[in-house]
Amino acid sequence: MIQGIGASSGIAIGKAFVLPNWEWDLPEQKIDVGDLAREFERLYEGIRTSKVEIEQMKDELREVVGTEESYIFDAHLAILDDPVFMNEIQGIIQRQYKAAEVAVKEVIDHFVTMFDLLDDEYMKERAIDIKDVGNRLLKHLLGAPEITLPSDTQPFILVAKELSPSQLVHLNTNHVLGIATLVGSTTSHSSIMARALGIPLVVGIETKMMEDVIQTGDSIIIDGDKGVVHLDPEDHLIREYTELQHLNNEATVRLKGIVSVRPVTKDGKEMELGANISSLKELDVALASGTNGVGLFRTEFLYMDRNRLPLEDEQYEVYRTVAEKLEGRPLIIRTLDIGGDKNLDYFELPEEENPFLGYRAIRICLDKTDLFKTQLKAILRASSHGKVKIMYPLISSVEEVVAANKLLEESKQELQAEGLSYDADIEVGIMIELPAAVMIADMLAEEVDFFSIGTNDLVQFTLAVDRMNEQISHLYEPYHPAVLRMLKLTIEAAKRAGIHIGVCGELAGDIDALPIWLALDVDELSMSAHAILPIKERLIRLNQQDSRSLFEQLLQCRTSEQIHKELSVFQSKLDILDKASSLH
Amino acid sequence: MIQGIGASSGIAIGKAFVLPNWEWDLPEQKIDVGDLAREFERLYEGIRTSKVEIEQMKDELREVVGTEESYIFDAHLAILDDPVFMNEIQGIIQRQYKAAEVAVKEVIDHFVTMFDLLDDEYMKERAIDIKDVGNRLLKHLLGAPEITLPSDTQPFILVAKELSPSQLVHLNTNHVLGIATLVGSTTSHSSIMARALGIPLVVGIETKMMEDVIQTGDSIIIDGDKGVVHLDPEDHLIREYTELQHLNNEATVRLKGIVSVRPVTKDGKEMELGANISSLKELDVALASGTNGVGLFRTEFLYMDRNRLPLEDEQYEVYRTVAEKLEGRPLIIRTLDIGGDKNLDYFELPEEENPFLGYRAIRICLDKTDLFKTQLKAILRASSHGKVKIMYPLISSVEEVVAANKLLEESKQELQAEGLSYDADIEVGIMIELPAAVMIADMLAEEVDFFSIGTNDLVQFTLAVDRMNEQISHLYEPYHPAVLRMLKLTIEAAKRAGIHIGVCGELAGDIDALPIWLALDVDELSMSAHAILPIKERLIRLNQQDSRSLFEQLLQCRTSEQIHKELSVFQSKLDILDKASSLH
Repeated sequence: MIQGIGASSGIAIGKAFVLPNWEWDLPEQKIDVGDLAREFERLYEGIRTSKVEIEQMKDELREVVGTEESYIFDAHLAILDDPVFMNEIQGIIQRQYKAAEVAVKEVIDHFVTMFDLLDDEYMKERAIDIKDVGNRLLKHLLGAPEITLPSDTQPFILVAKELSPSQLVHLNTNHVLGIATLVGSTTSHSSIMARALGIPLVVGIETKMMEDVIQTGDSIIIDGDKGVVHLDPEDHLIREYTELQHLNNEATVRLKGIVSVRPVTKDGKEMELGANISSLKELDVALASGTNGVGLFRTEFLYMDRNRLPLEDEQYEVYRTVAEKLEGRPLIIRTLDIGGDKNLDYFELPEEENPFLGYRAIRICLDKTDLFKTQLKAILRASSHGKVKIMYPLISSVEEVVAANKLLEESKQELQAEGLSYDADIEVGIMIELPAAVMIADMLAEEVDFFSIGTNDLVQFTLAVDRMNEQISHLYEPYHPAVLRMLKLTIEAAKRAGIHIGVCGELAGDIDALPIWLALDVDELSMSAHAILPIKERLIRLNQQDSRSLFEQLLQCRTSEQIHKELSVFQSKLDILDKASSLH
Repeated sequence: MIQGIGASSGIAIGKAFVLPNWEWDLPEQKIDVGDLAREFERLYEGIRTSKVEIEQMKDELREVVGTEESYIFDAHLAILDDPVFMNEIQGIIQRQYKAAEVAVKEVIDHFVTMFDLLDDEYMKERAIDIKDVGNRLLKHLLGAPEITLPSDTQPFILVAKELSPSQLVHLNTNHVLGIATLVGSTTSHSSIMARALGIPLVVGIETKMMEDVIQTGDSIIIDGDKGVVHLDPEDHLIREYTELQHLNNEATVRLKGIVSVRPVTKDGKEMELGANISSLKELDVALASGTNGVGLFRTEFLYMDRNRLPLEDEQYEVYRTVAEKLEGRPLIIRTLDIGGDKNLDYFELPEEENPFLGYRAIRICLDKTDLFKTQLKAILRASSHGKVKIMYPLISSVEEVVAANKLLEESKQELQAEGLSYDADIEVGIMIELPAAVMIADMLAEEVDFFSIGTNDLVQFTLAVDRMNEQISHLYEPYHPAVLRMLKLTIEAAKRAGIHIGVCGELAGDIDALPIWLALDVDELSMSAHAILPIKERLIRLNQQDSRSLFEQLLQCRTSEQIHKELSVFQSKLDILDKASSLH
């Protein structure tokens, strides 16, 4: 068993195919002075061809997984346009009379070594991009064939030192059951793509012996949930994993059966079950799960993995596509939520001691009003193609809502002047994710059309616990008496004001929390697409009345432990009742 | 005018005395092999003498400013005991046959250059320590006299490139009106000492030309509040600053007149006015201001600026001294509150993305129970010498209080077994500084004897604003409607439970906030010692009934701007009434 990091969930059982590394024979002799011009022409030709290929991959990827991930290749195009990169190559050719391929190889090696040295995930990722682009350029200069995966064999598990986005885009997902790589992180471009493609992936396999240990044809199991690779698994392990695959498939079939069932409790409380999405691919999964809409469209992914801000038109296209695909179901677009742990390459954010308590989200948008209005206008334009709503993140005061709405009003007027259409009655809401917003929820409710509770940040700030910090992550406790009271305060304030109240944090997709939302009579739960059907399956077995009694008891609990205990007693009773009724 | 950083407040007007740098003539010839033993003996003798001197300075400083600051010299003693430092010196003597003073100079220069290169305040501070100790050692090896300040002249303003703690400790405060240094920071040892000694100090004067610009005998003004040095000030500026000094003195006299006045409003609400202290020196200032006790004794300073944890006995001595000096008035000792932005040199804390949301305060104490119990036992032992209370910081749950109290109980039993006495009925309280604690204040109130509201952290977490972050510090707003409601919730919960309720954050010493505390009927305000008399002066002019009406209006405010406006209208009315009554 080899421990790695689970980067894309799922199980794969099969034979390994170990991907050979791209290795090239480079010309050793120097070029003649008279051939310099020809050598430069070869270099430029290679660059042109590489760009065409990358553009093609971008299109392919867009078709498969949606618009956002395809921007990954913009980073590659940017490298080929980077004057520093190109100057270095040209300099080596011109001053040292080396062949174009040798110059390219030296410059790649130089940058990769340099970036790898920096102990920084982002720079390591850039090193992979440069290698990927450089190898493509080398391939053209050398006239070498593309490395392809076998398509005439049984489906296999791909094993590689590392996998670049361009290698991944060419994968035939019918042939690749799963992937294991020696290096990589869960946030790398390749991991994002593997998740979008639904291929189980384990990265960062801890052993350096992999090339010796795993051979093409070896029997292996990939567990993308546990982040484990089993090499030459014993029969009982294969049986267990096959059984697990089977159960997963069974559950999938069972859940598919309720896709069209209305999300209503036994006693008639209907709950909208929406999806949190950040790509078109996720929207497809959500639609296949019978989503009631999109409760959270994270737009920062439109701004990431590229070298400039997205234009109004570019954003509009994406928002409109999502709105149209939803065919009238609501789409809540959250305005840009960068900062904290999310940065943009081309947008310099300050170094901060405590980024979670820093320059983020609506704070940036109210500061950089051009950036904000570009997005607001794109959203407004999309609003004439569906039921689009706008949501501001990280709101802490009435003043911020007023300031944001003022910019929204200006954006509307500008569109009107440009003769572009939008939904004049577009609904505007806010995330409730700061303790301050909870405390003044009644005041905020008078300013907006809806609330959506962001439980993750709310819990973090309420308890002063950064849940990514291993030393104290055990203190991150959503089922804390203080959190329950905050949820109650917020939801009751929304109800009293008669505005729509949703939840879009992780707690919305947590089975255990469902009775809490029912008790408080929440209108909508929005969650990652894969959670929608399991939540619905539970929802239709519950009833609101029992949930209310349970919640009364939860409010009496003085510790998280007691709350967990009450919830688990409730679930057990439910299971017993279910069994009893199935015996009838 | 030269802009610097104000490191110790106050105004000084006078003539400059520019401190010459410590510069030495070092012997150039090598030593004979036969003289090696003698050279080592000279080195050891120099070290011994330096240690004696440092111990003397430590004692002197302890007498002047209290125990905590004197620990600064422990860092110096530690350098002389540091094997790395000593090995380097011995190596140069032994292998290169250089004289001891040359070896010492080379090693100092090496470490200072190395530490200065690191762009890190802490390491730069260490460089100053090494230079200070090294120069002392050099002085003894060379038989050079101590650089002394003139004592036969008029009092002067000291100007220096930098000032080490050992230079500062020898200052005759009757002769030094103020200090300006080229380098330095507000957190340096020297700045801490200048504040403790009450000498105005401006550090980090931006010009490198200082040595040429400021000459001994020049007329200058130091403004430690604005961080400004005026060189050759014009007459009108001297007049203005003299007037300001006069007004400051007048206010001081006026405030001195109310030291013994009871802190009672016109309509009879008595408010305890306590001090937040972190040294014995501050305690003296507090006692001179007629403090009703110490509402917050920050103990982390006992743990800082040294190379190991303080022993139980060492802590006990300090706690007992404070308790005794208070002569029966209450002393609330807050248990160790490190982490966040406060680290210990010898106690490795993890690198954290968001230290404010990290491994801090009670979280560390409940994890490192030995460390915690050592402190609890020291506090318990001090409790038989006065009215000592224990306060836990950063409490987020009932569980944490229970866990801390369990360790307190164990500590009591261990003391009993050792035959050591303590106050068996010692009161235990908690800081209310997390939104979670506010939300469950009623539950927490059942577990403890008192609350003290830490407004600084509470505002930070409620608004998710790190106020040290310049980019968003304008969003740090204590007068936020959400904060007012949290204060109300907390104080009412304490009142209902019948426990003592205090406030020890910065808002407690803010004149504007006073009517809020009166309206909510807080029992105690604890603040920095210099704020006690100004707050009392205002308190005795207020009455609780008016404050209550004002607070009702504040609760209706939807924005911070409105709250500030209401408060300022209230203050103006008060001023008019005062004027009217003085006309009678």
